[in-house]
Amino acid sequence: MTLSIEAFNIDPLLLQALQEDISSEDVTTNAIVEKGKLAAVDLICKEDGVLAGIDVFARVFHLMDDKAELQIYFFDGDKIISGQKIATITADSRVLLTAERTALNYLQRMSGIASLTRQLTTMLEGSQTKLLDTRKTTPNMRIFEKYAVKVGGGENHRYNLSDGVMIKDNHINAAGGITQAVRRARAYNSFVRKIEVETETLEMVDEALAAGADIIMLDNMDDETMAAAVKKIGNRALTECSGNVTADRLEAIKKIGVNYVSCGALTHSAKILDFSMKNLRILS
Amino acid sequence: MTLSIEAFNIDPLLLQALQEDISSEDVTTNAIVEKGKLAAVDLICKEDGVLAGIDVFARVFHLMDDKAELQIYFFDGDKIISGQKIATITADSRVLLTAERTALNYLQRMSGIASLTRQLTTMLEGSQTKLLDTRKTTPNMRIFEKYAVKVGGGENHRYNLSDGVMIKDNHINAAGGITQAVRRARAYNSFVRKIEVETETLEMVDEALAAGADIIMLDNMDDETMAAAVKKIGNRALTECSGNVTADRLEAIKKIGVNYVSCGALTHSAKILDFSMKNLRILS
Amino acid sequence: MTLSIEAFNIDPLLLQALQEDISSEDVTTNAIVEKGKLAAVDLICKEDGVLAGIDVFARVFHLMDDKAELQIYFFDGDKIISGQKIATITADSRVLLTAERTALNYLQRMSGIASLTRQLTTMLEGSQTKLLDTRKTTPNMRIFEKYAVKVGGGENHRYNLSDGVMIKDNHINAAGGITQAVRRARAYNSFVRKIEVETETLEMVDEALAAGADIIMLDNMDDETMAAAVKKIGNRALTECSGNVTADRLEAIKKIGVNYVSCGALTHSAKILDFSMKNLRILS
Amino acid sequence: MTLSIEAFNIDPLLLQALQEDISSEDVTTNAIVEKGKLAAVDLICKEDGVLAGIDVFARVFHLMDDKAELQIYFFDGDKIISGQKIATITADSRVLLTAERTALNYLQRMSGIASLTRQLTTMLEGSQTKLLDTRKTTPNMRIFEKYAVKVGGGENHRYNLSDGVMIKDNHINAAGGITQAVRRARAYNSFVRKIEVETETLEMVDEALAAGADIIMLDNMDDETMAAAVKKIGNRALTECSGNVTADRLEAIKKIGVNYVSCGALTHSAKILDFSMKNLRILS
Amino acid sequence: MTLSIEAFNIDPLLLQALQEDISSEDVTTNAIVEKGKLAAVDLICKEDGVLAGIDVFARVFHLMDDKAELQIYFFDGDKIISGQKIATITADSRVLLTAERTALNYLQRMSGIASLTRQLTTMLEGSQTKLLDTRKTTPNMRIFEKYAVKVGGGENHRYNLSDGVMIKDNHINAAGGITQAVRRARAYNSFVRKIEVETETLEMVDEALAAGADIIMLDNMDDETMAAAVKKIGNRALTECSGNVTADRLEAIKKIGVNYVSCGALTHSAKILDFSMKNLRILS
Amino acid sequence: MTLSIEAFNIDPLLLQALQEDISSEDVTTNAIVEKGKLAAVDLICKEDGVLAGIDVFARVFHLMDDKAELQIYFFDGDKIISGQKIATITADSRVLLTAERTALNYLQRMSGIASLTRQLTTMLEGSQTKLLDTRKTTPNMRIFEKYAVKVGGGENHRYNLSDGVMIKDNHINAAGGITQAVRRARAYNSFVRKIEVETETLEMVDEALAAGADIIMLDNMDDETMAAAVKKIGNRALTECSGNVTADRLEAIKKIGVNYVSCGALTHSAKILDFSMKNLRILS
Repeated sequence: MTLSIEAFNIDPLLLQALQEDISSEDVTTNAIVEKGKLAAVDLICKEDGVLAGIDVFARVFHLMDDKAELQIYFFDGDKIISGQKIATITADSRVLLTAERTALNYLQRMSGIASLTRQLTTMLEGSQTKLLDTRKTTPNMRIFEKYAVKVGGGENHRYNLSDGVMIKDNHINAAGGITQAVRRARAYNSFVRKIEVETETLEMVDEALAAGADIIMLDNMDDETMAAAVKKIGNRALTECSGNVTADRLEAIKKIGVNYVSCGALTHSAKILDFSMKNLRILS
Repeated sequence: MTLSIEAFNIDPLLLQALQEDISSEDVTTNAIVEKGKLAAVDLICKEDGVLAGIDVFARVFHLMDDKAELQIYFFDGDKIISGQKIATITADSRVLLTAERTALNYLQRMSGIASLTRQLTTMLEGSQTKLLDTRKTTPNMRIFEKYAVKVGGGENHRYNLSDGVMIKDNHINAAGGITQAVRRARAYNSFVRKIEVETETLEMVDEALAAGADIIMLDNMDDETMAAAVKKIGNRALTECSGNVTADRLEAIKKIGVNYVSCGALTHSAKILDFSMKNLRILS
Repeated sequence: MTLSIEAFNIDPLLLQALQEDISSEDVTTNAIVEKGKLAAVDLICKEDGVLAGIDVFARVFHLMDDKAELQIYFFDGDKIISGQKIATITADSRVLLTAERTALNYLQRMSGIASLTRQLTTMLEGSQTKLLDTRKTTPNMRIFEKYAVKVGGGENHRYNLSDGVMIKDNHINAAGGITQAVRRARAYNSFVRKIEVETETLEMVDEALAAGADIIMLDNMDDETMAAAVKKIGNRALTECSGNVTADRLEAIKKIGVNYVSCGALTHSAKILDFSMKNLRILS
Repeated sequence: MTLSIEAFNIDPLLLQALQEDISSEDVTTNAIVEKGKLAAVDLICKEDGVLAGIDVFARVFHLMDDKAELQIYFFDGDKIISGQKIATITADSRVLLTAERTALNYLQRMSGIASLTRQLTTMLEGSQTKLLDTRKTTPNMRIFEKYAVKVGGGENHRYNLSDGVMIKDNHINAAGGITQAVRRARAYNSFVRKIEVETETLEMVDEALAAGADIIMLDNMDDETMAAAVKKIGNRALTECSGNVTADRLEAIKKIGVNYVSCGALTHSAKILDFSMKNLRILS
Repeated sequence: MTLSIEAFNIDPLLLQALQEDISSEDVTTNAIVEKGKLAAVDLICKEDGVLAGIDVFARVFHLMDDKAELQIYFFDGDKIISGQKIATITADSRVLLTAERTALNYLQRMSGIASLTRQLTTMLEGSQTKLLDTRKTTPNMRIFEKYAVKVGGGENHRYNLSDGVMIKDNHINAAGGITQAVRRARAYNSFVRKIEVETETLEMVDEALAAGADIIMLDNMDDETMAAAVKKIGNRALTECSGNVTADRLEAIKKIGVNYVSCGALTHSAKILDFSMKNLRILS
Repeated sequence: MTLSIEAFNIDPLLLQALQEDISSEDVTTNAIVEKGKLAAVDLICKEDGVLAGIDVFARVFHLMDDKAELQIYFFDGDKIISGQKIATITADSRVLLTAERTALNYLQRMSGIASLTRQLTTMLEGSQTKLLDTRKTTPNMRIFEKYAVKVGGGENHRYNLSDGVMIKDNHINAAGGITQAVRRARAYNSFVRKIEVETETLEMVDEALAAGADIIMLDNMDDETMAAAVKKIGNRALTECSGNVTADRLEAIKKIGVNYVSCGALTHSAKILDFSMKNLRILS
């Protein structure tokens, strides 16, 4: 799997992150290491998990030193095991030390998300239910976090408020009902968009179906209600289960046969996967 | 406690986050809700924890609608309990719906960090050991995450590579020893900075003391070695315990009497604290 | 109709446009007019057409003088006639003179697009065929130009490459066929997206239908082929006619009963609608 | 003719345009085409006209792929004929598909302006009257549009409000007369600037001459008045004819012998020149 | 005299300067002073000179606290005397302390430039020779420094490379002579621009005159040669004396009767004028 | 000595400075010199002093032409003598002419600061007193100016308000005394920071010592008081002499034995060191 995000979209974020960590200069490295010495260092994995973001990690070094070279031994989506050497980076020794933390901060978070996603998608194997992320991402990290979910085997829900229609409880209140809300959404929106409606009861499911929703979210329903909803909907719309979905409940959900289950924790509460850079050696 | 971070430093990040979530327009809200209707909505806490970031949350709404008004019932640092109403936001109804997720994404993450920090600092109560954060923060979130650690009762380590000297293993290798590294760091750096050295053995501690380190990090030492190091150092330097510190180990660490214990998990692996916005009502 | 585009999305563009026109200062106005004199000026329409962008026009003045006030007599979507007074702007006299051209450059272009769109949508009245824009917009003007199309009565196709799937000839070549391309697009994309395929022959239409395309573009087909395609497709997919559509050909197209007809000229070749600012009077 | 605009001035605009069209990723291309495949594609002209912006077109591809290579067969200022192959672009196949529309949007607009300019300058051949552009450009496109006018054989009026003095009707009102306005402008402005005054009557021409204007604009005058003005002015100032100049009227204007005629339509109402990219072939 | 520079042009620079001085937060002020306390402080002049930049100074506080209020007792261009109270600023006490240095850094530099300029223009009084600045300004400070020169009574030469034509020695070499260079410059440039040629000998002056230069720079000429040049040129062109002009030489230059004398030291080597903020008192 | 400032921190400033000097294009150079001609030009020193900023100078050319090559004959920190050739730059001839002033504006200012610093540090030789800079830098030039101070042999005080604690008179007033202020500063700040207190009398020195200040600034004290203070302080804190320090007074100060003496004039009032670019020759 290769990076599907463009340099012109991520470089401004990576440069901003470097500036966040280096507002004037790296006062330790510049004191200790002369400029112009080539060095190599190894990227070591310190926990078992799924790798995600190796190209982002590499890009951080390239932005500081366009002659930086990386030998990469594992790629995004690969299972990695604590202790494995993931890559060797060769660059100006100052750059290796100065860019390290920023590069790792991206890699550890992206790999943490991919690892959690893989864990949950594995639980869904054998079912027709697919795992979705949400918009509950870390601000200014969405492009990386949604990518990491895909690396982990999950699917992306809409990217943001501009590229998908989701009618939620507050919208329904404001519109005065599902029917009205769907009608307005259809009239206003580009024909390329599907329309999703959030429902909490079977009555709402009925109204959403009648209104012609393309996707019906079953929000915080108990298993029984959700099963009834899925049965009622059949092929007339896609179904998405939502609401504090945890690993514990996945088994039940997949039996119900909902098409998608979305999980905010993938991006907002995944633990990182730990990496470190070791064995710096000066080459010249 | 009031927000100690300036609008000119965070506004660019908040606007960028809004643009990340709304690249053209909110295609659902704009379809359904007329512009110019004033509305109110409640911010509800859905888990027990510590509130952090309420001013950031408010600022997101102000950036979209400078007439937005918030009644705030709890403040940063307050313990909050699931179900409590934290604030009421009054603004253009479109703004309430469109800014919701971005505002919550900041609040939930900051409060998650403060809650985890509070949990650990509570465990340290009665000891002289203080809890520190690290530079293992989410890219472009450091200003928020370090603030949240303080709200939770932790202390901040250096902000970034430019405002503190920390000599780590790779620096020591590159310099050819601790003595050399400390000497170079002292010569290069502004006299306002203290110098910290990372050590892994008692021999390294001895060398760091002899070199005149102001702070000695005891990295990945077992309890016995750490106790010996702390005793050896006495008042000659401040001590910091580091290396995959978990709640389980805090009890032992605080008995050893180290001055500081740093914990990357505060910022890189805290679960969010869950909030939602409920009960939107159109006022005009 | 009120502006559906957010200040945080357009302000950076408007400020950039002001800087483009005023790299240091307005050397004429600042020479001649004292700062601090309040003045009023009228916005006059000089051609018949449809107004679009009056809020953008106003925003330019507000960005230079937050005390600027506008009395607006016509709103976006209104038909306006040469000579009519559209608005009166009251602000610092320097601001009125300095911001004039930038504000007019937005207004004249947006109104030109709305006027052309209205002309074509009027021709489609009574049919089921709707008019669409394209991505052939002026760089860094899309948010304004797509909005103007809506004001003129047209509908928006996808906003950009990130929010809609459109499989074109070069994609089909690269994939080795429509079937393969649609399959990959479905597998890769968020379930919120419909998939559109560009076809040039009836064989391609067949293949697109079999592959499950949600929307089929009929590209550069003659009337007869297009009619056959529309008949073949029926309700199995939405249809879009594309390819150098001109006013002359609209009559034929609407008889064929295609769902949508897209027209790049709406945004890339509309003449402006002419306005000027007249009768500046110093008020204080 | 080679590009006279610097990368540091246009790159930020080009990158912004790419981000406008790709807010997260190209969801079609990334689904269908693997990363890392080299491909070539042809740029084909679809209308007769004058080429302008080929270096801008090329720069868009270079910004996405610094290994992109272009073979360019025609250059800015060349007459091109429908069907001709203008260039061949070789780059990563994803880049060819993703950057296509942004690159074309610049090229088609710049070439449209150059083509209209060439048409009008051709009509002025044999006279001493030269064609000028105005500040009626598309926001954030001025650097491209003014360049295109030069490519088409026109001349540029002032670039913006900061680099030329033009005293218009509202300035004259505010100053209380031409004499006063010119005096203030001369006193305030750098000695490197000429001073232009807009006049509508022969009396105003007299006053502008007496005040020492370097350039006199003859605004919306009928042919007879303009001829009288030109005769009266002689060599004492340069003359510029302005006011809804159309092709139809150029013949009359050039006989009058005015030095310059300015035409806003060059930049605000030129139709694009149509191009497309065809024959994508994967090379590796 | 009021500020002739627009907020949209200077705000980005002022915010950048604030971020340069406050990369995370003001760690002293935030420790010591509670947020939300209104306070007042006096701006005191500590040297005799000419005030310039008081509106820029004020703007810095407004950017941090839009409720900041200033009572201003002296204005740009006023002579001020050591010890005088220039203004009283009332704002949030944190803002007063945090913004102080950035605001003063602008004010002291601008006033230093105005003071030196006033000193030199005073020496030129009674002559027809006017004092000019150059492009030898501090990077990213030009808009402030050129304004300060005007406040001090000097005139501005061209603002930058885009708004004035100046043919220098290296241009003449590259063109193969003055005649050729002037011809090319005339052909290429907008008719709103005058053309200046740098000359070092009387022969070059002759050639520049013959080529029709509007302004002739007499570069590094001795008094005798300069006098001969000025006599030779008469009214056929404006004259500018240039080349390490110092106060000592001004007396001689003004007798020669050159129109302008330019002095890089105004902006590159003026000492600052010293100010401080005193007597902070908490008001609430 | 090699440049210790990173491209990602200075490139945005350098590009901004280029845009300040070239808002559309270099209208002289582009008129006269064809694009694509390689040329060389020499950088000549016109005054004796200390070189600083040669890498920044070079970077400006590289940002405009990534094929620019520099042969550099002297390096930062070298003494240079009027007339010496410092470097030869080979690049596109247009780039040499267009980037010249921006590159020189950085170099001349940085070298001026290094030269003044060297002059003062030379006077301090043989003493234990070291020279410090301040935050009285030119806005948006701090990274360059603080670096130049180091090149000249001075030391840097804190970089900005975020990386060092300095308790000044207004802070002391606000806190209600030194003791209170130091206590709050210690409680609030990261343990990596030393705490400096500004004192004006021996009583204040006593209070600062008792409060545990790490650094005591002796502000505007006469020699006798300062000597008493230094004696009183001994090794209990570092001492810094501040307040309109001039070359004349350095001799007395160094005898007193203060650790540091800070001097704002280094960065706010140093004259530039003059350079010019000569002997442009076209190579192809």
